[in-house]
Amino acid sequence: MAAEPDAAFAAWWAERRSAARLSVTPVPFRELPHWSFTRDGDLVHDSGRFFRVSGMRVQGPWGAGSGHRDQPVIVQPEIGVLGLLLKRIDGEPHVLLQAKAEPGNIDGIQLSPTVQATRSNYTRVHRGGATRHLEHFAGPGRGRVLVDSLQSEQGAWFWRKHNRNMVVEPVGEVAEHPDFRWIALRTVRRLLRVDHLVNMDTRSVLGCLPVELEADAAAGTVPDDGPPTEAARDGSTAHRLRAITSWLIDAKQHCPWQSGLVPLAAVEGWSRTETEIADEAERSFRIIAVQVEAGTREVRQWSQPLLAPRRPGLAVFLCRLTAGAPRVLVRARAEPGLGDLVELGPTVQWSTDDGPASPEEAGPYDGTALTDDAARVRFDAELSEEGGRFHRAATRYRIVEADGAVPDQVPDDHRWLTVHQLQALVARGHHVNVQARSLLACLASLR
Amino acid sequence: MAAEPDAAFAAWWAERRSAARLSVTPVPFRELPHWSFTRDGDLVHDSGRFFRVSGMRVQGPWGAGSGHRDQPVIVQPEIGVLGLLLKRIDGEPHVLLQAKAEPGNIDGIQLSPTVQATRSNYTRVHRGGATRHLEHFAGPGRGRVLVDSLQSEQGAWFWRKHNRNMVVEPVGEVAEHPDFRWIALRTVRRLLRVDHLVNMDTRSVLGCLPVELEADAAAGTVPDDGPPTEAARDGSTAHRLRAITSWLIDAKQHCPWQSGLVPLAAVEGWSRTETEIADEAERSFRIIAVQVEAGTREVRQWSQPLLAPRRPGLAVFLCRLTAGAPRVLVRARAEPGLGDLVELGPTVQWSTDDGPASPEEAGPYDGTALTDDAARVRFDAELSEEGGRFHRAATRYRIVEADGAVPDQVPDDHRWLTVHQLQALVARGHHVNVQARSLLACLASLR
Repeated sequence: MAAEPDAAFAAWWAERRSAARLSVTPVPFRELPHWSFTRDGDLVHDSGRFFRVSGMRVQGPWGAGSGHRDQPVIVQPEIGVLGLLLKRIDGEPHVLLQAKAEPGNIDGIQLSPTVQATRSNYTRVHRGGATRHLEHFAGPGRGRVLVDSLQSEQGAWFWRKHNRNMVVEPVGEVAEHPDFRWIALRTVRRLLRVDHLVNMDTRSVLGCLPVELEADAAAGTVPDDGPPTEAARDGSTAHRLRAITSWLIDAKQHCPWQSGLVPLAAVEGWSRTETEIADEAERSFRIIAVQVEAGTREVRQWSQPLLAPRRPGLAVFLCRLTAGAPRVLVRARAEPGLGDLVELGPTVQWSTDDGPASPEEAGPYDGTALTDDAARVRFDAELSEEGGRFHRAATRYRIVEADGAVPDQVPDDHRWLTVHQLQALVARGHHVNVQARSLLACLASLR
Repeated sequence: MAAEPDAAFAAWWAERRSAARLSVTPVPFRELPHWSFTRDGDLVHDSGRFFRVSGMRVQGPWGAGSGHRDQPVIVQPEIGVLGLLLKRIDGEPHVLLQAKAEPGNIDGIQLSPTVQATRSNYTRVHRGGATRHLEHFAGPGRGRVLVDSLQSEQGAWFWRKHNRNMVVEPVGEVAEHPDFRWIALRTVRRLLRVDHLVNMDTRSVLGCLPVELEADAAAGTVPDDGPPTEAARDGSTAHRLRAITSWLIDAKQHCPWQSGLVPLAAVEGWSRTETEIADEAERSFRIIAVQVEAGTREVRQWSQPLLAPRRPGLAVFLCRLTAGAPRVLVRARAEPGLGDLVELGPTVQWSTDDGPASPEEAGPYDGTALTDDAARVRFDAELSEEGGRFHRAATRYRIVEADGAVPDQVPDDHRWLTVHQLQALVARGHHVNVQARSLLACLASLR
């Protein structure tokens, strides 16, 4: 099991943590240099770059009241790169991870992908950008691309955010640096079980990595859309995928929501104080401002807004791992910030772990997902969401064996999919939400 | 060649035309019942349904001046269905087409798909909706789904419009109706060469229909994502597709545009009179209002805005049809209203047929695309765009044999793709723009 001695990793990690300390202090909005509120109330950076906090309005069939729900939302229209380098060392697939501090992180540093680059980093790569290792993902030095797709991020908090998720086998030398470390994939799988250690971006990319691909990577026999083993077993794989995508398009078409951006000042039910933008019911997230100071060596200091949830969320896959091809129960889930509104999500996904935050979040398997039966709980950890935009945002991720608790026939917004089918949909991009991709990464840790 | 006697079609067509006459009269905006301008200048329907005319702002690297381009745009966020019924009659694949009049049509009626349904038609199907034949595309009576994908429409005129393109083999009886006619696919291919006869929606759906699928439909051997013949010939089909999608993601990521909606009143360089909204340079389209009266039997009357281009556009595929697998030269094309900004488009695509309307529209193959050499021009017809939203909008569609005029090595925003590769990308949805899908439909007429 131990592909790498725990002690070596722990020593590196402790050293990195002391080297990368961030001091993060909440400040009033007026103490955010370079950030200001527009006449419409949006919170924007002077340069017009990075991101802005605006408003989102969702029209829906909610009958009573205004007929719409409003909230602040993070708008960041560019496509960034989340890139992972993968190579075989002594026959064993390893990935190059980075110890990276983000201001919203719960535990200081987390294991991040090789590269988290913005569009402007990426397009400047030919001039030798500042983002380390980016040359393996773009331009003439790009390695062998194993995974490359556009994937959404939290549709409850972001307006149509998507990032390019890549796994690349490098062709040239990969420079060493103390913040980066080649770690066996087997070890990474194990580390996923540690609370708040493997960051969201790493999980998102790992969730795009088919298990077969891992095994075959660097052996020159990389399979494609449909994993070959299953394709060989089942000549109708593609037929089934078509039926699944038709079902997902049905869900998109039936979704009665219409969402759009509105000025933050027009958002109803939320108000702004000197230090936060919050909903009057105090049930949703807050927008706050922080000042960040990076200690050691070169002193670096900046300020930025963060989206701060009040509680952790919950994301659970019910699954059947014991008989035949492993299957998971997905749910077609609407989130107002997603481009098509609906993507495949976990069986159960709550904004807060103390219960469904709205009637749509409730589902028939909520109780099963929260079972205490240790024999059925195959994975249970509290992991962090993106610390560059969210303040201490966590989700409790669980994988629970369904046993006989869930029949084959499920309500029409649910479907049993094989892990292979789900991975084929991930490969197409914009089909599987970020929580479900995280769970796919965690699921691989059970093998 | 003549799968159906021309005379029979012509007689039906003449009869339908006289039965479906529309009288369309331009009127001032104030004579549009149920439509009005909001305080922000948007042109909206009282019900909040159908569509609205708003403004679109595109930030780009245009340097001098304001740094952005503004224009009106049609906003219609719902997903409609464009559905085609396909069945084999006496061994020959036929599709059920509809003679349908739209207010913006150049020639009164055009050949439309079996179904053009809005979301609300579609979601009401279980109550027996008013849209004829819809029961074959949704609900328990749905037939065997051969094609099902979400596809974009004009990104220069629509804000993130997409429709569900479906081809279905019916399982139950298909009721007869004088407006509908089963026409052999071979005949439809021939009719594509007639100016303004086969409407945009039909072409869009036909462009999603792989040639093999046609042949095999109703024979129970429908191929999937990758056409099996090519897949068998070339084990690396999926690898190549991955390289192509990586290239397309590169183009999306590098696109320096940011587009967003703004109130129509904020659109710069355009002004509104009593009868039109037009750009001050008089080079782009106009927004006008029309009153429509449908004669015969039940008198029906309504009014609506239309987007009226000043000239036809141009869309050309350069291709290599003579040696080996047929190939077309695609270009990664940015259009501000597309969800990801960039999709695959024709080799040449101009907003107006008298030259590129902007520097981005120009390209190295403009001259080749306009060749007069009859031996190389394989297809040349002026076809209509959607008559329900556009007023007499036409595009000159050409397919031109490249011969030696275009090398294998092309600029990085161009790629030679096999027709099979392009069809596999069409099947994924949101990869190939509506002009290129029209051209794919026309290309099949050359077989």
